[in-house]
Order: sequence, then C-alpha cells, then structure tokens
Amino acid sequence: MSQPLSGIIPPLVTPLRDRDTLDCAGLERLIEHLIGGGVSGLFILGTTGEGPSLSYRLRRELIERTCKQTAGRVPVLVGITDTSFTESVNLAKHSAEAGATHVVTAPPYYFPAAPPEMQEYIQDLVAEMPLPMFLYNMPGLTKVSFEIDLVRRALDMPGVCGVKDSSCDMIYFHRLIEVAKQRADWSVLVGPEELTAEAVLLGGHGGINGGANLNPRLYVEMYQAAAAQDLKRTRELHAQVMQLAGSIYTVGRHKSAIIKGIKCGLSLLGICEDHMAEPFQRFREPERAMIRERLVKLGLIS
Amino acid sequence: MSQPLSGIIPPLVTPLRDRDTLDCAGLERLIEHLIGGGVSGLFILGTTGEGPSLSYRLRRELIERTCKQTAGRVPVLVGITDTSFTESVNLAKHSAEAGATHVVTAPPYYFPAAPPEMQEYIQDLVAEMPLPMFLYNMPGLTKVSFEIDLVRRALDMPGVCGVKDSSCDMIYFHRLIEVAKQRADWSVLVGPEELTAEAVLLGGHGGINGGANLNPRLYVEMYQAAAAQDLKRTRELHAQVMQLAGSIYTVGRHKSAIIKGIKCGLSLLGICEDHMAEPFQRFREPERAMIRERLVKLGLIS
Amino acid sequence: MSQPLSGIIPPLVTPLRDRDTLDCAGLERLIEHLIGGGVSGLFILGTTGEGPSLSYRLRRELIERTCKQTAGRVPVLVGITDTSFTESVNLAKHSAEAGATHVVTAPPYYFPAAPPEMQEYIQDLVAEMPLPMFLYNMPGLTKVSFEIDLVRRALDMPGVCGVKDSSCDMIYFHRLIEVAKQRADWSVLVGPEELTAEAVLLGGHGGINGGANLNPRLYVEMYQAAAAQDLKRTRELHAQVMQLAGSIYTVGRHKSAIIKGIKCGLSLLGICEDHMAEPFQRFREPERAMIRERLVKLGLIS
Amino acid sequence: MSQPLSGIIPPLVTPLRDRDTLDCAGLERLIEHLIGGGVSGLFILGTTGEGPSLSYRLRRELIERTCKQTAGRVPVLVGITDTSFTESVNLAKHSAEAGATHVVTAPPYYFPAAPPEMQEYIQDLVAEMPLPMFLYNMPGLTKVSFEIDLVRRALDMPGVCGVKDSSCDMIYFHRLIEVAKQRADWSVLVGPEELTAEAVLLGGHGGINGGANLNPRLYVEMYQAAAAQDLKRTRELHAQVMQLAGSIYTVGRHKSAIIKGIKCGLSLLGICEDHMAEPFQRFREPERAMIRERLVKLGLIS
Repeated sequence: MSQPLSGIIPPLVTPLRDRDTLDCAGLERLIEHLIGGGVSGLFILGTTGEGPSLSYRLRRELIERTCKQTAGRVPVLVGITDTSFTESVNLAKHSAEAGATHVVTAPPYYFPAAPPEMQEYIQDLVAEMPLPMFLYNMPGLTKVSFEIDLVRRALDMPGVCGVKDSSCDMIYFHRLIEVAKQRADWSVLVGPEELTAEAVLLGGHGGINGGANLNPRLYVEMYQAAAAQDLKRTRELHAQVMQLAGSIYTVGRHKSAIIKGIKCGLSLLGICEDHMAEPFQRFREPERAMIRERLVKLGLIS
Repeated sequence: MSQPLSGIIPPLVTPLRDRDTLDCAGLERLIEHLIGGGVSGLFILGTTGEGPSLSYRLRRELIERTCKQTAGRVPVLVGITDTSFTESVNLAKHSAEAGATHVVTAPPYYFPAAPPEMQEYIQDLVAEMPLPMFLYNMPGLTKVSFEIDLVRRALDMPGVCGVKDSSCDMIYFHRLIEVAKQRADWSVLVGPEELTAEAVLLGGHGGINGGANLNPRLYVEMYQAAAAQDLKRTRELHAQVMQLAGSIYTVGRHKSAIIKGIKCGLSLLGICEDHMAEPFQRFREPERAMIRERLVKLGLIS
Repeated sequence: MSQPLSGIIPPLVTPLRDRDTLDCAGLERLIEHLIGGGVSGLFILGTTGEGPSLSYRLRRELIERTCKQTAGRVPVLVGITDTSFTESVNLAKHSAEAGATHVVTAPPYYFPAAPPEMQEYIQDLVAEMPLPMFLYNMPGLTKVSFEIDLVRRALDMPGVCGVKDSSCDMIYFHRLIEVAKQRADWSVLVGPEELTAEAVLLGGHGGINGGANLNPRLYVEMYQAAAAQDLKRTRELHAQVMQLAGSIYTVGRHKSAIIKGIKCGLSLLGICEDHMAEPFQRFREPERAMIRERLVKLGLIS
Repeated sequence: MSQPLSGIIPPLVTPLRDRDTLDCAGLERLIEHLIGGGVSGLFILGTTGEGPSLSYRLRRELIERTCKQTAGRVPVLVGITDTSFTESVNLAKHSAEAGATHVVTAPPYYFPAAPPEMQEYIQDLVAEMPLPMFLYNMPGLTKVSFEIDLVRRALDMPGVCGVKDSSCDMIYFHRLIEVAKQRADWSVLVGPEELTAEAVLLGGHGGINGGANLNPRLYVEMYQAAAAQDLKRTRELHAQVMQLAGSIYTVGRHKSAIIKGIKCGLSLLGICEDHMAEPFQRFREPERAMIRERLVKLGLIS
C-alpha cells in the first residue's frame, strides 16, 4: 500500500493562446516554475485550470504535454469531472495512457445527485478507473457535497485514494481527517490556501492551492512549517499567504476574480499567457495595472 | 422575418439501452407518438433529455436520427448548452448539418458568469451559430439567470429567436413577454407544464413541457384552449395536467423524480426503454408499480 | 360556515413619523383611500407594513387605531408572525379585543423549523387563537415554506381559514387551490401583484398586493375582471399593474426597494409620511425625484 | 482602554419549565457549573439560548437572574438581536441596569439589509448602546453577513468591542483577525466549537461554544493549550471536542439537533430542565436514550 500524497500540489492554470489553443511554451515554463519551487505534484484540469470550459481535444493535449514535460519528477493528477460518465471514463483512460498518476473527480455538476444516487455513481465510476481516484468536494460549483457517509463507504473502495476539499467548511474537513485515519494510503488535501495552515496543523496532508501558481516556494514553506509543527513560522507564512490572496483575488468584482488574478499575475511574471476560455475574459486595463502594482508590493516583481 | 414558434414543443427524453447506446426503435416510436399527438416541434438534448449526461458521440447520433425521422414535419430544436464554448459550437454545427432548425442554450453551468460576462458570452456565441438560437433560462440547474437586461440587449441580435423559461418565476416570465413584443419573430415558451395555461392566457407562445412525452394530445389541447381564450376549457385541461404532474412526478423522493417518472411511464406505455445515464438510475420496483397504477388512474394504460 | 374572503386586501404600509411614532393622521387618510378604492379588507403588520421592525407598543397602537378607523366597514387582518410563540399569542389576543377579524401568521423566522416541527407549531398556535388564522407562506424571508402536506392537514383545523402565498411559486399556488377546494370557507390569496391576474383566472380568491396602497382602484378592477373571466380586460389591467410595479419598485437597488417605493409614493400623493423603521431608511433625493416622475407617467399625480 | 475578552464564553441554554417559565434553580446550577468549569464569561440570549423564541418578559427575567447569580465573578454578555431597533435598545438598557457587561447583536433577521443599510443600522444602534457591543455574524440564520468592510469601519466606533463569528467560514475569520489587530481592545471569538482550536492557534481570542454547557472544563483546557501554543495537547483536546460534537449533535435529524442535544444532555446531567420554546420541542424517547448512552461513552455520566 502506497504512501499518501502530501505537500503542496498546485492546481495549474491552463495557459491559452486563444479559447482552443494551448500556450505550449507557457505550459512548459509553468511546470518548471512549479517543480523548481518544490511542489509535491501537479494538478491539471481543476477549477483553477478552467477544466470544464475547455474542449475535449484541448484537454487531451494538455494531459499529454504535462505528463511529457513532467517526466515522472512529481505525480500528475488529472481532473476528469464531467456531467457525462462516459466522457469522464474516456478522460481517465487517456490520462493513464499519457502517464498521469491520479485522477480527481467532483460530482457531476448539472443534475444534483441525491446521496444514494451519488453513492451508486461513485461506485460505478471507480470501477472503471485505471488510476487511483481522489474525490473532489466543491459544493460551491457542483451544488452537492460528498457526504461524510459516502466518504466513509469509500474506505472500502481500493480505487479511491483520498479527498480534496474545497468546501471552505473546516468542520467537514476535520470529519474527513477522522475518517481518513482508517486508510493509511489516503490523503486529505484542502483547496483554499487561506485554510492550508490550520488544515495541516490539525492533521491534513497538504493543499491544492491556486496561489501556488504564482509563488510556489511560499506555499511549500508554509506547508513544511505546519507539518513540522513550527507554529510561529506557520503563522508568519500564513499571514503572507493571506496577503497574497487578499491582494491578488480582490481586483475583479465577480467570482471569476481569483482565476483571472492568477492568470494575469503569471502573465506579468513572464511565465505564460493569460487568455481565458469562455465564459470568462482576461483582465484588461485598469485591472492589469492593479495586479502589477500588487505583485510589486508582494515582492514578486520589481 | 419568420413567425415565432408557438404551441407545445416537448422536451424529448433520450431513449437509451444503456448509458451510451441509443434505443433507436424507441426513439422512432417516441417521435411518431409526439408528432401524432399534434405537437408543434421537438426539443432534444434538454434537461428532460439528460443532455449533459450523454457522451458527445451519442448526442451527435441522437441529433442525426431525430432529424432523419422527423423529416421536416415539425421544427427540431437541439440543446447545445455546454460548459465549453467550443463544444457548444461543435454541436450547433453538427445540428445544422443534420437538418435541425433551432439551437437552445442555457448558461454554462460550472462557472457562474456575472451579468457582464454572460452578456459577452452570448454575443460571442450567437456570432458562431448557424441556426436561430433560443436562450434557455434554467437557474435551478445553471445557478444563474439570463437577466432581463441581457434579454433586452439580445433584441439586437438577429440570431436570437426567443426564450425558454424554466425558472418557475412568472414575474420574470411576464417581463419576458413585455420585452419580446419588440421582436415579432420572438417566441417566449415556458418550461414547467403547470404554468403553461397562465403563460399562454397572458401572452406566452407555448410550452416545452416534459409531461407531453406521455400524453401529447392533452398538452396540445390545453395550449389550444388557452390560445383561443376559452377559459373554462383551459381550466379543465389545466386541472388534468396538474393531476398528471402531481401523480407521475412524486413517486421518487429526489429531484430526479420527474425525468425518472416520465421515462418509466414511457416504458410502461411500450414506447421506449427507460434506462438512464448517470448520475441517475431508472425506477425499479416498487416505484415502477406505483407509476403503472397512476397511469391506469390517469387513463393512459388499462 | 362563513364565506371565504376574496378580492383585493392591501397590505398597508405603516405610516411613521419616526421609528417609534405612528403618523396617525396619515394612517386615517390611508385607510379612507383604500376603502374608498373598493378594497375587500385591510391587512396590517405584514411585510409591506414592516411588522417585524416595529416595537410591540407601536404594533398594539396600530391595531387599535386601524380597527377604530375601519369601524367594521371591511375585515381587518393582523399579522402576528413572531419568533416568540408567546408574543404571537399576545398580539392575537390584543387584535381580537381591538376588533380585528383575522390573524395572519408566517413561520417563525429565526430558527427554521423542519416540517414535523412546523406541524406541531401550527397545531399549538391555532389552539390559542381567538380569531380565524391565515397561513402566510413567505419563504424568501422566513427561509422555510408551509409544505403542501402541512396545508392539507390544516384542513382539519377549524381555526385556519386559508393561505396567503408570497412564494412567487405558482406551481405551489395551484396545489394550494386544489387543497383548499375541500374547505368551502378557505380563501387562497396571492402576494405579488404581478401574479394576481393568473391566480384569480385559475381559481384563487384574490390578492394581498402592495401596489394597491398607491392605486387601490386599479387592483380592484383587475380582480373583478379576472373573477368575471373577462380575459381581454384582465390582460389590459394586468399590463397596467406590471407597469406600476416595474416602475415604482425598481428605483432602489436593494430588496427594500419595493417598500421604499410604495412609501415614497404615498408621501408624494399626500397620503402619509414615508419614514421607515430600521434597518431601512426612506428614499431621499435623487430617488424621490425618480418616484415622482414615474407617478406622473402612471397618471397618479400631475 | 480595556483588555479584550478572551477564553471560553459559553452561550448558555435557557433553562425552561415551560415556554414562558424560567427554571430558576436550573439556571443557578448551570451558572455555577460553568463558572466552576473555569469559563471566562457567560453569554445569554444567543442562538443556543433560544433568545428570539422567548417572550420579552422572560428575557428580562433571565437577564436579571443571571447577573444576580453571577455577581460580577465573570462578564455577562447579553444577546439583544432583534428585528425591531426599538426592542434591541430596550433590551440593552435593561441589561445595563441589571449589571451585564456587554451586549451582542446580529443583523436584524427578517428583512435582509444591504451593506449600506447595515452600515447605517450599526452606526445608529451603537449610538444608543449603554454597554460595549459585539457584532455577531451568523449568516446561516440571519441571511446576511457583516461584510469585512463594515467591520473595518466599525474600528472607528468606540462602542464596538469585537466580533463573534458563527459563519463557519474560516477565511472570513482570518480576515477579522487582521482587521481587529488595529484595536487592542477588540476580541474576535468563534462560534462553532469544532473551529476553536484553529481559531486560537492562528490568533483568535476564544470561543463561544455550545458544547461548553455540558463540559466547560474540556473547552477551557483546549483553549488554554491553544493559547499556550501547545500543539500536541491542542490536537488531543480538539479530537475530544470533535467527539462530543459528533456524538451529541447528531441524534436528531433537523437543524435543531444541536440545541436539543445540549439541553437533553444537561437534563441528564441533573443540571436543568430541557423544555424548549417553540418552534422546537425537547427530545423524547428514543432520542433521550441515545443521548444518555453517548454521554456515558464520553465519560460525562456513569
């Protein structure tokens, strides 16, 4: 039985040249930037990666290029969440063939499945998976949660290897930790970076944090301090993470502000283009100027 | 400038043999059952059709077979709602090539677009559409509405031909009617069948009503009575529609009860199979026996 | 067994001179304005009346003065909704002593009661009521609905005399009509004025419509046309009601815009002061000027 | 300028003999049980105290008796949240006269105030307060939050002394901590006990935790360990708190399960009666037997 994944696993933005064209050089630079920053894995096609907004063709291309560039240095996790069971299976198979190490699935997000329907869905899905599967709890966008009872039953599914929780509900997260103690190979990871410090201090395995795209080193160090139970250092680094999130994610007025802010920042750092897939559009001026100014304040550009 | 669509346009269930295999004979029988019942058009790949749960391959097959079987007798409307702009365009092009007459699009349902983002999305999408496009308002599943302001601006887009409203909010619906008066070719259709009587009495063009799969004649007659302003007859038929909905949609305990009830009923009527795509499963006993009993009471089977 | 209430029963604004002082002369003028406009009853201390925002002392004064001024010409309904059972009973007793004819209660609005808890609550409450009681369904503000099953059980409670539904959910409203057919003395009234036409056309007994404060005659005539099944006239008057609501309720940007608009309008009509109880404040300029302009367009002032 | 409140301040249940009669002996025992357990203050008339469900007469009696029994040994905080501004002021004045030390107010919970309306509301309210006032953020029951911007502006109001946050949103909580650093006398306290450990580890001042009614010593020790930055001990005690909450709050199926569980437990501990005010009813068998069994497992009764 394998070790649980732990540490910082950034949810990569998808570098785009236009809505259906990958920024291939940008993707390579982004991967090197992150691996160079000490991350423990890469997660593509998640929410930050605009997964559901991309064509299937582009998703397959992204999977292939990411696995090739990573070349086994760290695990590659692929989001296969889909409203169509068949398309989720197709993506998972493609991921395995390309060399990915894990898949990640949130509930199907058009029809809200009731708990017994969700239970049956996960059982059927995991049976078709060629790779270990994370449950991705994201009720803000999928409308429904993976209930704790479902997670408890998933302990009996060898194909499930843990949970990523982006619910922002730390009571739920602590319940996950309790459940996961029964599977030594399970990993419980938290989504929002503002919560990674406490998640790790109280038993979580790490974070899938969007801001790590911009400054992977900061997030890795915060994780390490928390894992080492160095409370003083954890608080200092947590304050820096709060500052990054509070300054970069509050430029736009809509919920899309987080992804737009990260992509815009990466573009200003010279790492990749910031084009977005619909229904979003990248920041133009004056938002771009505000992001630049804040990156300067954060010491990320001069 | 063409006439607005009016009357009953059923949102077809998708007859399935398993999650990725069409019940082709069932589909043909269903189409004949509906056209024989006097409907004014066919709408495939909507919510009742489990559109988002189907693979793209199956969606394309369904479009082709429906258009071929219909053979121009009534308009064919195709749901192209998708979280990926590119896939929506692909489906629309495929629909036009197959002989469909309209496309129907709800907001992308993973990321909730803010009003200005939605405005830009619709402008960009309609520019790529080879067929007239309906806006499909369905906030219960897509999280966001098409705001009245957006609909008003869509008056200036020749490619938009109307709105289907499944919000259950009749105040919103009446506002739509007001707006649509400025475009003689626009059609405003209502989703839930319990609301079709009042929608048509007060100026709407018809209904896209799931129960019409089971008893198209009833819904067509109710529409005709309301369009003829025969209030007494409309109230009688509305009461029958309420009875059908109240008995067939309340067997299951989850939100999926409506589609499950219709599919189960169609199977009991001998029209098509009732397999469903995940995350749903068809009714088994004892729910199936309850649906049978209620169909008997409704006089639909003996 | 008495006749069900029917027709237009305006939910009176509460004329205030400051947060805890009644505008007594304004209240008298408002009552005469409404009774002169042909309304079938008066409803005080509802949502439009800012009931929950007023001190108990002021509520009691309002009940007394309204009953005295009305002097039996039309029924007086009093909102006794409260989070405290004991205070609801106190208000109901005071209402009976003052000469009111009905009480109206929505679910307690701090703790959301689950259906069996609500069932017990209503049973216990009605047992203490000295007057016939309406159930007031208002989930937008109380968080929970009176489920149809609860309403069905209330058929067996002689103290319940009907339902006022402000849910905006006409499917629910039609179910209420079906249930109420079993109690010849029950009345089913609709809240939002935009829905009164269809409610009455399809079997409802009338409307508790805020806009009737401004123009009672219009709402009374619309009700009469719908009750007489004069569809053409109903549509004309419904369009006028939509116009009033669409112009007066859209001046402010918050949910409070409806009550603020009505109060401001009444002040401009010279009927009563427009002071509000916290958490709201009356419209100041430029909103007041916009309301004036719109009242001119509606022909209500010159 | 005074020191900020810190530590565990239990939100007392209100011991009742029936809906409008205080269990006076039970209240005295409860207060002694809590002060004996080392708590830093007492909070009455909050959510756990069923504040909004009680008559004003009973609320006043509770305030008086609590202050008298406490006799200055610890601060007494009184919930004055109300939909009526005037009644909130009345309760605050009564609290000051009775000897309470602080008042606590959540947003008025019938009409949802928009941010600028809330800002004005708080400014006006604090001007009338005879005691330092806590803002109580509880969007699950009041529908609206105190936005961070409002909290920031409250820094300039000398009458505001901190925030109690029961939103379960730890990102929001961390933002509160940042803001509160600018007022040395401000205290930021967390509601749900499952979150007190991390709240204090990362800079919060303590918890207002319902479970402390049952076992004040446990919560006080957890707070002390976290305040002393003893991470190992904090994790052990946090696990015990999770176990208490997970076993006592999950007996009922509705949201009322938490308060019902605590009251039932206190009754089984012989501290006070467990009668509840409507819309709730106390646990009867078999729920009571389940609570007894779980208290045994937790070692709280034998």
